[in-house]
Amino acid sequence: MTMYNSIKEEAYHCNMELPKLGLVLFTFGNVSVADRSKQVFAIKPSGVPYEKLSPEQMVVVDFDGNVIEGDLRPSSDTKTHAVLYKHWEEIGGITHTHSTYATAWAQSQRDIPIFGTTHADHLTVDIPCAAPMSDDMIAGNYEYETGFQIINHFAEQQLDYREVEMILVGNHAPFAWGKDGMKSVYNSAVLEQVAKMALLTEQINPSAPRLKPALVKKHYERKHGKNAYYGQ
Amino acid sequence: MTMYNSIKEEAYHCNMELPKLGLVLFTFGNVSVADRSKQVFAIKPSGVPYEKLSPEQMVVVDFDGNVIEGDLRPSSDTKTHAVLYKHWEEIGGITHTHSTYATAWAQSQRDIPIFGTTHADHLTVDIPCAAPMSDDMIAGNYEYETGFQIINHFAEQQLDYREVEMILVGNHAPFAWGKDGMKSVYNSAVLEQVAKMALLTEQINPSAPRLKPALVKKHYERKHGKNAYYGQ
Amino acid sequence: MTMYNSIKEEAYHCNMELPKLGLVLFTFGNVSVADRSKQVFAIKPSGVPYEKLSPEQMVVVDFDGNVIEGDLRPSSDTKTHAVLYKHWEEIGGITHTHSTYATAWAQSQRDIPIFGTTHADHLTVDIPCAAPMSDDMIAGNYEYETGFQIINHFAEQQLDYREVEMILVGNHAPFAWGKDGMKSVYNSAVLEQVAKMALLTEQINPSAPRLKPALVKKHYERKHGKNAYYGQ
Amino acid sequence: MTMYNSIKEEAYHCNMELPKLGLVLFTFGNVSVADRSKQVFAIKPSGVPYEKLSPEQMVVVDFDGNVIEGDLRPSSDTKTHAVLYKHWEEIGGITHTHSTYATAWAQSQRDIPIFGTTHADHLTVDIPCAAPMSDDMIAGNYEYETGFQIINHFAEQQLDYREVEMILVGNHAPFAWGKDGMKSVYNSAVLEQVAKMALLTEQINPSAPRLKPALVKKHYERKHGKNAYYGQ
Repeated sequence: MTMYNSIKEEAYHCNMELPKLGLVLFTFGNVSVADRSKQVFAIKPSGVPYEKLSPEQMVVVDFDGNVIEGDLRPSSDTKTHAVLYKHWEEIGGITHTHSTYATAWAQSQRDIPIFGTTHADHLTVDIPCAAPMSDDMIAGNYEYETGFQIINHFAEQQLDYREVEMILVGNHAPFAWGKDGMKSVYNSAVLEQVAKMALLTEQINPSAPRLKPALVKKHYERKHGKNAYYGQ
Repeated sequence: MTMYNSIKEEAYHCNMELPKLGLVLFTFGNVSVADRSKQVFAIKPSGVPYEKLSPEQMVVVDFDGNVIEGDLRPSSDTKTHAVLYKHWEEIGGITHTHSTYATAWAQSQRDIPIFGTTHADHLTVDIPCAAPMSDDMIAGNYEYETGFQIINHFAEQQLDYREVEMILVGNHAPFAWGKDGMKSVYNSAVLEQVAKMALLTEQINPSAPRLKPALVKKHYERKHGKNAYYGQ
Repeated sequence: MTMYNSIKEEAYHCNMELPKLGLVLFTFGNVSVADRSKQVFAIKPSGVPYEKLSPEQMVVVDFDGNVIEGDLRPSSDTKTHAVLYKHWEEIGGITHTHSTYATAWAQSQRDIPIFGTTHADHLTVDIPCAAPMSDDMIAGNYEYETGFQIINHFAEQQLDYREVEMILVGNHAPFAWGKDGMKSVYNSAVLEQVAKMALLTEQINPSAPRLKPALVKKHYERKHGKNAYYGQ
Repeated sequence: MTMYNSIKEEAYHCNMELPKLGLVLFTFGNVSVADRSKQVFAIKPSGVPYEKLSPEQMVVVDFDGNVIEGDLRPSSDTKTHAVLYKHWEEIGGITHTHSTYATAWAQSQRDIPIFGTTHADHLTVDIPCAAPMSDDMIAGNYEYETGFQIINHFAEQQLDYREVEMILVGNHAPFAWGKDGMKSVYNSAVLEQVAKMALLTEQINPSAPRLKPALVKKHYERKHGKNAYYGQ
């Protein structure tokens, strides 16, 4: 038993949702859960198959990427998580996958257009796709720089990470986050579903228009903000 | 035990069919079941995950959308259900989902062409797609107006809700109905399957013709009307 | 116990394979199994859900479509089965489904091109698609004429039903057959898989060529004829 | 008990992974596992359904394709495996499937472009597609020549089988290999996933560029070579 048991348990359960939701093949994904009071997060160990995972194996890391507790090496994407936690103070969980449709959009280097209310129930803009990173960033501290690529894209596009809880990293794959681990997993599944429906929409109607502002606003506000009336 | 137990039980079982049939992700769907003698319907509570649902949680609502019984808030789409029950007197169940292929057609704002007998076994015309609602309707009593958008589209297109038991609401998602809850769930699954096959049909042959009238009539009448001979 | 128990049992087990193989939604399919010595076949009752099916419910029908034994109405497609059994003396089982990809090709009214060895392992030509039936045939004895539409297409195309064990009926759906019921189910699943891969092949390369004759011959003869060496 | 029990057990378990991973329909695939010290491999018997498979049924074959132990006929693709083991001394397992998306690319006769990091995590070049074989090779010792078609394509393209552990054989289907049986199964599943995402990528953006060299190098080296830091 350690002072980090709670986030290790939560991180374990969140990671185990990924195969259930069909978001990962083998070990192609990871979830982390932060404890803001201790300035650490628990994350999946690198390359361990989901069917062999246990809560004890979760690795505890600080917001600079240093391992605080754990016998195993943390996910190779750990530094990306650390950067996001350090700079975005209101997020409590992060999920990274290579889910099929979201990754295909990332490989296509296109934002996912906002075509319907399923999308607008979760965010009011196209799902952003950051450009592939510069050769310098890649050759340097790659996973660390991936975090900055995300943060910089949000700054350039004037997006708020509290309102847009997901991104595609060009040529790579999606990241999603939220107030806790389960919300980040939820967002990853929503992103995958919206990505699939957007591709199908363009196949059915190549000139399908984006959702109009009144519907975007209405659906987003049903679920978000002080006048939300969805859920209990 | 209450006088509404029967429709609450039925609504519960109908709602639980949605994840089994692959028609919902998370809580993106709801089924209601009406008791015409009492002028009420039972509907899924808003935002409650299917794996935590129980018959007792179903919310009983009258045809004006007022909650009659239940501790939880009803589905955010409740008023759409209420309007349909109030104006279409022969329906006993309604299902709303964001199923993948039907929603993609709704986002594409296209009717689903009648390409084959699977479609004609269930209806004789293209599956209608109502236009996205006006900004006034959206800003007003949105879910209530969604019901009228559906009813008005049927009136304009001279469609009979007893013969065409499904619609796409443009940019949004499908609704289906029927004589009882299970028939509305069945129609939702048929719609999703027909939507998928129609997209594939256009991909295989972009100039695929619609089903000819003789086949439309034959297949529909195998299953409907006084000379039907399908089933027991 | 009746003299037909054997084919009723076999027909039951074959029908139960359809949902397991993902070839049917609800009751959109049926399998029959013939007893050539008695000139009858056992077939699924019409409209009975697979999860409620039992061997006793199978309906025994002769090759003219007359019910010989059974309390339930046989599949609405029964006369199509009867015609095929009557005219094609070496088949012992027939499967009809509305499986997704095969039906999309049928709706597209296109033969499925022979693009690879998976196809050639089972037949040496494109999978034929019969034209939609004439209005006279449809208005008459529809299911009976469907059988003749299939037989006539084979005659016109000079196809041998012992070598080509599957067909698409234009605007409708696939039929497959074989020496026994399980072989017809197997052929239905092969057809669905080949249909899916053919669509994907055209999407990847719109000018993909057909398999060349030497490969067609080689793969077909690995599994068929006196020099076959596949299997035990 | 025989001296080959170890590879027969391993081959059995590897073969049983194929249906679990959705890589095979019926018997359309096979895995072999080599014992380099004895210059033999164990392979699936031909045409035996996975649900009836047992470790004892695995057939032991030498690197010239002669059966050393086993009551059943080995996979019809056995000679292809034998040729690869004989010429590529560092592989310990081979998997052949007709998995849906990889086979569609093979039928399209196109290399699979390297569009993203999921691909680069496993290899640094397009997944090669060998041309369909010559008529002479097909008419001769077909499965044996299939092995040479693969080896010759690698030689012509100056590919190293230790770095590129998978290939498409034009008009036919994929082969994958690796240091042991499970690695070859893993590679087959990766190939299928990469093949699916590449098709989707081209559908979303027909002019999607390949991954740039810096990202290819970075991702490959995260998992391979002396500076790898993925996994434990």
